[in-house]
Amino acid sequence: MNVSIHGQTRHYRTVTFDASRNEVLLIEQRLLPHEFKVVKTSTYKETAGAIRDMVVRGAGAIGAAAAYGLAQGALSFRGGSLAKFKRHLESVFQTLKAARPTAVDPVNAMLQVGEEMARGESVAEQQALAIAAAEEFANQDVQHCEEIGNQGVKLIRSGMRILTHCNAGWLAFVDYGSATAPLYRAQERGKDFHVFCDETRPRCQGATLTAWELQQQGISHEVIADNAAGHLFARGEIDLVIVGSDRTLGRTGEVANKIGTYTKAVLAKRHGIPFYVAIPLSTIDWNLRSGVHIPIEERSEEEVLGVWGVNQGGKREYVRVTNPGSGARNPGFDVTPPELITGIITPVGILKPSALWKKRRELRAS
Amino acid sequence: MNVSIHGQTRHYRTVTFDASRNEVLLIEQRLLPHEFKVVKTSTYKETAGAIRDMVVRGAGAIGAAAAYGLAQGALSFRGGSLAKFKRHLESVFQTLKAARPTAVDPVNAMLQVGEEMARGESVAEQQALAIAAAEEFANQDVQHCEEIGNQGVKLIRSGMRILTHCNAGWLAFVDYGSATAPLYRAQERGKDFHVFCDETRPRCQGATLTAWELQQQGISHEVIADNAAGHLFARGEIDLVIVGSDRTLGRTGEVANKIGTYTKAVLAKRHGIPFYVAIPLSTIDWNLRSGVHIPIEERSEEEVLGVWGVNQGGKREYVRVTNPGSGARNPGFDVTPPELITGIITPVGILKPSALWKKRRELRAS
Repeated sequence: MNVSIHGQTRHYRTVTFDASRNEVLLIEQRLLPHEFKVVKTSTYKETAGAIRDMVVRGAGAIGAAAAYGLAQGALSFRGGSLAKFKRHLESVFQTLKAARPTAVDPVNAMLQVGEEMARGESVAEQQALAIAAAEEFANQDVQHCEEIGNQGVKLIRSGMRILTHCNAGWLAFVDYGSATAPLYRAQERGKDFHVFCDETRPRCQGATLTAWELQQQGISHEVIADNAAGHLFARGEIDLVIVGSDRTLGRTGEVANKIGTYTKAVLAKRHGIPFYVAIPLSTIDWNLRSGVHIPIEERSEEEVLGVWGVNQGGKREYVRVTNPGSGARNPGFDVTPPELITGIITPVGILKPSALWKKRRELRAS
Repeated sequence: MNVSIHGQTRHYRTVTFDASRNEVLLIEQRLLPHEFKVVKTSTYKETAGAIRDMVVRGAGAIGAAAAYGLAQGALSFRGGSLAKFKRHLESVFQTLKAARPTAVDPVNAMLQVGEEMARGESVAEQQALAIAAAEEFANQDVQHCEEIGNQGVKLIRSGMRILTHCNAGWLAFVDYGSATAPLYRAQERGKDFHVFCDETRPRCQGATLTAWELQQQGISHEVIADNAAGHLFARGEIDLVIVGSDRTLGRTGEVANKIGTYTKAVLAKRHGIPFYVAIPLSTIDWNLRSGVHIPIEERSEEEVLGVWGVNQGGKREYVRVTNPGSGARNPGFDVTPPELITGIITPVGILKPSALWKKRRELRAS
């Protein structure tokens, strides 16, 4: 999406690849929203490090970074032995996979690139195919998000006040995002609306990343404390909710997403406000039989006990907020049941949660 | 309640009066939880300043501070002219009232002290009555909170996991608190339970003040992000909710309290978990006919855009968290309807919200 720096506006993707220099270019997301910077990695090990250290985060974005990282590793190979090349690639794959061991997207992305490469008959051919396949993976991610936007834009009318939670924005993908794609499409079509961004404690991705994205695109928005949405629902000030998902169960329609999502769904239901979840099809888990089996990561106490911000001197700093003698519980995700979800916005249409399983053949083939 | 400093444990009230030195002693609440300090004011103007600057906050605590401030002002009068004394007192009253112009407790407290004083026939007699009446006001506040504890303790069983929101603790009163009084009483009776403290963004009173209180009393507790309660309800990890209230409507049973309270009530209802509101009777507004008429203060954006904490050097600091180009909405309170409230814990019993109006004669006489 567009980013304005020093009055200049330019289009960026979160991750791109410069094959001529064998460099992966990544938006340094840990500095946002206080600084915009693109970093370059010159080796696949550096790319793995950037994934591990969360320079890049978000399902689609780390998938593309791993796909490019695999191509980057392939290009760095010198020599003509296919056997040696294969062993080298295996090591590249493992290094990139280990960067975020529980994430599924980097693995799927690299398997897709690997399959394409296998069609080449020489090291040089396979290297060329790796570049093309990684580029193709990133382009597919962009296209899926654009399609989510084309589907979801139908829900947005001028004058609406839309609530979103966390960051399911373009920074989490290669471009456009999932929950944000309908917003960006609606803006392109001249619709006029307002977005409330939940702060999304403890990591505050709504206040930092989503608010930054919306500001860059010039979309009217305000940040609210996670506590405030209930009051806004009660006073009739929210017309629509759109969130993303980390994992959606194809069998049950349950949606795992950032902690606090479930609460917003309960409030939306009580007030009769439509609640939508926007996802690429790769987010659907076709195996798990119940949301209670979704492992809910208990994250570090420090995230709740304090917060990262910028002090008055402009320096990034962690401040401890909570009473020094107290500990914290920090579940990272929650599960929203299908009866609270009005619809799931996918690249191929807006579906009831219960329709995912009925349409599994079409969806898995897409 | 008890406070431990350097291994020494002592009992404190939030506000006390030393008549021999004509000083009001206040716990400096703005430094908590990072520093415990008692400050002294030597004039009623200093006491008004402490109320205005939120050295002391919370309905009961600022009521007692104003009662003591009026006595302090009375004691500082030199001379025997009752007419001049009365004019002086009027000025003391107005100064203390203006310190928190929208709060009702300081005014009620001072009117109570003034009524008692009027029984004296000389300046000296009225001064003596002022001290006694202010002391009496503070003792009543303590007694009401103790009675809330005696009523509410019946709800608590060993093994329970109890959620509370914001700080309706002893720091907000003279002692014991409202929502916390049942917890302290249950602990005295040897019951063993665990408390989840909502962080309570944007001002984080749960993470700072309530967590500090519970730690000082040695009650098992953890701070959670405001987003996390929904997940804990869904997993069956919360058995009881107790919160306070800033204003409870006697006619309708609606409860205004810190932003986010309504959300917790909605979640509790969905999961069949009892939701109680603990209040002294002075919190009941007998006039207002509907919660929609309760003015909801829109507070400063800065509270949402950043947070106060302590940096790694141990210095108190405000850090900006939100994207620099974004603004915020910051409603300070919300209104919970009676159908979400299991009961209202008052000093004279636990009542259904709808019973307040039926029992208005007894309650107003208490």
